[in-house]
Amino acid sequence: MAYIPKFSKFNWEDPLNLESLLTEEEVAVRDTARAYCQETLLPRVLEAQRTEEYNGNTIPEMGKLGLLGPTINGYGCAGVSSVAYGLVAREVERVDSGYRSTMSVQSSLVMHPINEFGSEEQKSKYLPRLATGEIIGCFGLTEPNHGSDPAGMETTAEETDGGFILNGSKTWITNSPVADLFVIWARCKWDNKVRGFLLEKGAKGLTAPAIKNKLALRVSLTGSVFMDSVKVTHEAVLPKAQGLSGPFSCLNNARFGISWGVMGALEDCIERTRAYALERHQFKRPLASFQLVQKKLVDAQTEVALGLHASLQVGRLKDEGKLAPEMISMVKRNNCGKALQHSRVVLDILGGNACADEYHVGRHVANLQVTNTYEGTHDIHALILGKAMTGIQAFAN
Amino acid sequence: MAYIPKFSKFNWEDPLNLESLLTEEEVAVRDTARAYCQETLLPRVLEAQRTEEYNGNTIPEMGKLGLLGPTINGYGCAGVSSVAYGLVAREVERVDSGYRSTMSVQSSLVMHPINEFGSEEQKSKYLPRLATGEIIGCFGLTEPNHGSDPAGMETTAEETDGGFILNGSKTWITNSPVADLFVIWARCKWDNKVRGFLLEKGAKGLTAPAIKNKLALRVSLTGSVFMDSVKVTHEAVLPKAQGLSGPFSCLNNARFGISWGVMGALEDCIERTRAYALERHQFKRPLASFQLVQKKLVDAQTEVALGLHASLQVGRLKDEGKLAPEMISMVKRNNCGKALQHSRVVLDILGGNACADEYHVGRHVANLQVTNTYEGTHDIHALILGKAMTGIQAFAN
Amino acid sequence: MAYIPKFSKFNWEDPLNLESLLTEEEVAVRDTARAYCQETLLPRVLEAQRTEEYNGNTIPEMGKLGLLGPTINGYGCAGVSSVAYGLVAREVERVDSGYRSTMSVQSSLVMHPINEFGSEEQKSKYLPRLATGEIIGCFGLTEPNHGSDPAGMETTAEETDGGFILNGSKTWITNSPVADLFVIWARCKWDNKVRGFLLEKGAKGLTAPAIKNKLALRVSLTGSVFMDSVKVTHEAVLPKAQGLSGPFSCLNNARFGISWGVMGALEDCIERTRAYALERHQFKRPLASFQLVQKKLVDAQTEVALGLHASLQVGRLKDEGKLAPEMISMVKRNNCGKALQHSRVVLDILGGNACADEYHVGRHVANLQVTNTYEGTHDIHALILGKAMTGIQAFAN
Amino acid sequence: MAYIPKFSKFNWEDPLNLESLLTEEEVAVRDTARAYCQETLLPRVLEAQRTEEYNGNTIPEMGKLGLLGPTINGYGCAGVSSVAYGLVAREVERVDSGYRSTMSVQSSLVMHPINEFGSEEQKSKYLPRLATGEIIGCFGLTEPNHGSDPAGMETTAEETDGGFILNGSKTWITNSPVADLFVIWARCKWDNKVRGFLLEKGAKGLTAPAIKNKLALRVSLTGSVFMDSVKVTHEAVLPKAQGLSGPFSCLNNARFGISWGVMGALEDCIERTRAYALERHQFKRPLASFQLVQKKLVDAQTEVALGLHASLQVGRLKDEGKLAPEMISMVKRNNCGKALQHSRVVLDILGGNACADEYHVGRHVANLQVTNTYEGTHDIHALILGKAMTGIQAFAN
Repeated sequence: MAYIPKFSKFNWEDPLNLESLLTEEEVAVRDTARAYCQETLLPRVLEAQRTEEYNGNTIPEMGKLGLLGPTINGYGCAGVSSVAYGLVAREVERVDSGYRSTMSVQSSLVMHPINEFGSEEQKSKYLPRLATGEIIGCFGLTEPNHGSDPAGMETTAEETDGGFILNGSKTWITNSPVADLFVIWARCKWDNKVRGFLLEKGAKGLTAPAIKNKLALRVSLTGSVFMDSVKVTHEAVLPKAQGLSGPFSCLNNARFGISWGVMGALEDCIERTRAYALERHQFKRPLASFQLVQKKLVDAQTEVALGLHASLQVGRLKDEGKLAPEMISMVKRNNCGKALQHSRVVLDILGGNACADEYHVGRHVANLQVTNTYEGTHDIHALILGKAMTGIQAFAN
Repeated sequence: MAYIPKFSKFNWEDPLNLESLLTEEEVAVRDTARAYCQETLLPRVLEAQRTEEYNGNTIPEMGKLGLLGPTINGYGCAGVSSVAYGLVAREVERVDSGYRSTMSVQSSLVMHPINEFGSEEQKSKYLPRLATGEIIGCFGLTEPNHGSDPAGMETTAEETDGGFILNGSKTWITNSPVADLFVIWARCKWDNKVRGFLLEKGAKGLTAPAIKNKLALRVSLTGSVFMDSVKVTHEAVLPKAQGLSGPFSCLNNARFGISWGVMGALEDCIERTRAYALERHQFKRPLASFQLVQKKLVDAQTEVALGLHASLQVGRLKDEGKLAPEMISMVKRNNCGKALQHSRVVLDILGGNACADEYHVGRHVANLQVTNTYEGTHDIHALILGKAMTGIQAFAN
Repeated sequence: MAYIPKFSKFNWEDPLNLESLLTEEEVAVRDTARAYCQETLLPRVLEAQRTEEYNGNTIPEMGKLGLLGPTINGYGCAGVSSVAYGLVAREVERVDSGYRSTMSVQSSLVMHPINEFGSEEQKSKYLPRLATGEIIGCFGLTEPNHGSDPAGMETTAEETDGGFILNGSKTWITNSPVADLFVIWARCKWDNKVRGFLLEKGAKGLTAPAIKNKLALRVSLTGSVFMDSVKVTHEAVLPKAQGLSGPFSCLNNARFGISWGVMGALEDCIERTRAYALERHQFKRPLASFQLVQKKLVDAQTEVALGLHASLQVGRLKDEGKLAPEMISMVKRNNCGKALQHSRVVLDILGGNACADEYHVGRHVANLQVTNTYEGTHDIHALILGKAMTGIQAFAN
Repeated sequence: MAYIPKFSKFNWEDPLNLESLLTEEEVAVRDTARAYCQETLLPRVLEAQRTEEYNGNTIPEMGKLGLLGPTINGYGCAGVSSVAYGLVAREVERVDSGYRSTMSVQSSLVMHPINEFGSEEQKSKYLPRLATGEIIGCFGLTEPNHGSDPAGMETTAEETDGGFILNGSKTWITNSPVADLFVIWARCKWDNKVRGFLLEKGAKGLTAPAIKNKLALRVSLTGSVFMDSVKVTHEAVLPKAQGLSGPFSCLNNARFGISWGVMGALEDCIERTRAYALERHQFKRPLASFQLVQKKLVDAQTEVALGLHASLQVGRLKDEGKLAPEMISMVKRNNCGKALQHSRVVLDILGGNACADEYHVGRHVANLQVTNTYEGTHDIHALILGKAMTGIQAFAN
């Protein structure tokens, strides 16, 4: 009587069975997002990449499917779990990090701060229209001289009759050239604290020119924001945010989504280079039969599995109220770093075809360099975690 | 009204809150193992490393605490979860990979096959005494010419009057010089299939000399096994194992434990080098304040977190009957590779003291090179996974 | 009486004093090339990158300066050393790998085979005009299904009345859309050997459409070559090349130049990111004062020094007739691999500005992925060297 | 008439033909050293490794062959080139880094400072006997609390009747337990400057106990030096060294030799694992036929070639008086780092046999971790070079 091992079949696309840990709702949201992304976004991506032209339909389409601000309860939002939000980011970034950036800004950097720090009037006024994609928002934190160090912020707000006057400039602001609503962070002259202000398109002194000829994230729109004595009413300030904890809360939300998104981009790189390796023959054998090629695919897929399970755990803790922000630094840093590293490795499988944009992987590689850098560079998150491990701050070392 | 972020405190030693995913029983087993390891094994380890002398108390001590064959139900075994088994491995290897090897062999490579493939008589006869550590076992699979490729096995069994005769030799066999019981895999001449046989110390023609002057795993005992026409009765064969799926099942169990164990070794390296970096000053500042040092610690701790959560998921799937053996290849390979890589990196924090054995980290580094190799090298597991990803076998490429 | 150490001043841009090993002529050629590249090519590069538009002035300008086919004696060529040729490649690629590719094709892949394998008539007819850049050439070896494995070539030549008929297609052919002269390698039906043929623009059945939307090398022009029963006279065949040793000789020459060129690209990345790190402040200190930034710069510059000295030695051996082709595999592979790796690392120093094309480094990074792949991928050269080290061919393993 | 390429045969053991750049004398010195090392040192090394027992014959044997202080002119020294000195270090370290350390100390850290900073009396008294190995020396710079930062030195010298009194302790001092002569660096109380003192074995208050149970460099002897009011005469001070430039000059000499030595150790690792890979079969093929194995060997051998040519250039510049100390930081750091990295990679080729000391490679790996650390860690040399590149000192960052 022989021993029959009782094993499940290995699914290389989900090596450690993440699926078994998702709720039915999460699976449904993920499948909706995947269908939209593959059917609608993917066919657009090459042309958008080549031309850097922004497609105004994307945000309303996402809104229609409930993908915007999805973790918010009420105001027309879906109220799903953080993991569901992560799964959506993964599906969108499977097509392009730029589409995911466009969406992340709307959800995590515009809708989240209004929901978290806004007044009831602000929420009612803006959230429903942001959720449907009727209006689009942007988030103004980074300044030309202050990337990794927002404490050096130079944009100011001062009080005036009936409101505030804002002056300053912001750069690398996703969505700004088409934004209807600007969440602008400024240092308040009266108490030196940072607060968020809601500015609307068309305000006098407010301009947001596009930055063109980007080497990456070309399907998303990026611009500057210039504020030359822009006047807003007292109702424009977000009442519940004082200090940098406000914008940092937004960044944490966005980073959590990024940690999922980049895994989707890497998965797409793996899937495409694996298919290529199976089809392409050299020396009369498929590339996929070469040890050096198999190792590249396996190393990459292992990191996908590890990264997704780590982000899943962070998502669960987030919804249980057990989150520490350093956890997000860890998964943002790890997943972005690993996605970049391994997308580059598998790109080489394409050989000379790596530089043809129809193969998609080179585009992911360029995008992932940016995702590894924005919302806190790989090194900055190392030092955030280093401080957590040692108690010693080494940013300025 | 200012925004007060509701965050938990970050625990760098458990960055993604693994603790919250453990059962009470698992925590209790882990704590028992930790106390024993830190209080009893740690004080012995330096002397054992220096002399390569085996301590016969270790196995009985572990038995007394229920750490041997702990996932087996009945026969005096604890019947705990696979995750609990992994947690024990982690605690033991936090002291030394050699102690964990000694234990792994007893549990995964001796008790497991008897429980899985043995007759009721074999189980009753051996398991209770193996569980208490009254007797100690070893596992003879690897041969001098067949490390990564057990299909080439040369040891044979042939039928004879009243039993079988075994001939052949095995090498790199942990515990063999002191083993009371030998689980020996041999190719059966009558049908060319591989089967397992239980040999007892003292059998005529059976010798197991020690291999000395090892560069690693010096606290465990390693030897050869030589079988010169060793006769056993018909009752010595494991009835339920035919073919290589039997020994592979054992290896899978052992590899699962290794994937936990090596994370414990890396954790010890991190803890020790972090403490050193906080205490040691150069250029009038603690080493821990240097960016280059913080990065080393953070990279390592990130891999610990990811590796443990991946192994946890594999353990849960194992107990739910949803395991695929490639999952174990993935966590064994990843965790061993990462433990080796990062233990080496943090070792450099010790500077010149790295080569003093009192600092312990250099010993872990040497051990982890072996754990990365045994039970399937890093490359072999890459090719196992590569086959799963591409459908193409590339071992002999 | 105190000890005064007698040290030279360290020049970080030439860490191991390569300059002291160059002849006066080599320095002069290098300086000429540098001036041209910085003054003429650099101002054009951004626009060319954005538009993929080829500038027809480049090749004639280079010709005027004696940079084309410079190692050839006679026929209007400069007759300088191989090291001088390498120094020119380095200066051109300091601006862009695409400009260097354009030049490499003309020199190593068109002029070299005519000079080495051509008849006196062919040399007299073509070399002088190629040297001045009056005409431009391309090199057709790679086919759509045969990148790393030219032995599988499908393009054929058959003998016919008064000449040959060529059929087949080539891809990823630099310069082909504007080429006046095509060096085409084809399998001869009558003896199954590979030979080179010289085709002129306008031949019936010969087309060379451009490949657009490339992700890299955008300032150079790339295309396919299609041959639909193209007739040439008997004078079109290169008489002295039979078999793959002909095209391999060309590739070796090109690879030698690439090994110098990519070091120039990496040097430009280092120079730009170093300047940025000195100017850009975060946390009130220049980025250049951060340990993590210094390490990136130092690692990169070390590889530049090592790579250049290795290529220098190969150049010297080449001119002394002591070259082995595996030496070229070694420096091509090493220098391309290191340039790619370290350009990526220093790119991160730019933070968010990495994706602005005005900073130039991202463009180099994209280019260097291609240089690491073309003319033999990193892995293929590993296996060429692996065969040299072990005696065992493992391409098809 | 077919093209016959005129290529030299590739010699994988000297890929870029270093041999062609050596003088006849250098080749002769190298061959003498190689013969001694392979015939005399190699047979001793395993036993010495196992027992940590110092062999008193080594230094006299080396002296007899002219290998001690070989670059010194006169005093019984050979007066050969710096490259010859490097070649000797490479041959000795091909056997073991510990033997090379023993020799380096005698030559670079004891004979060099006496020759460079000593009085004529000191030179005449000590150099001839050091050159023959009749007496053995050690070098006391590193202190228990000051490894990377000798400026913090705590050992003091104060003037007294007829001489000086020294107090303090030194650690990790190679050769100290058997040293006849101690070159001790101390801070002079009268002017706060660091000076070197020559102490002889047997001086009252001078002890030098051995440090045992080292994890690496076990064939060399290491100890502490304790000075409890040790009195020396005025003749004991090295007259020409004031400040840290004195010991730094010694370290530079030693580091130069290390940069050659570690390449020899890596070469031995490559040679042994290559031979193993050719002989050992798995899956019915030699390991050497596997792509993953070939890549390991090729990567390692490439770094050997690059490192040796870089060190050669530094040696030539040294003898021409064109040396900058940062050049030595570059080759010491690079060669040690690469030797460590690649010795570890090729070690894996040995599979389970990696931990058997008879295979030698594991011993090299352990040794190379120390060589990467001592005489300036990998990171410290990065920061030395970083300062040279940026002008900014970041040691204490």
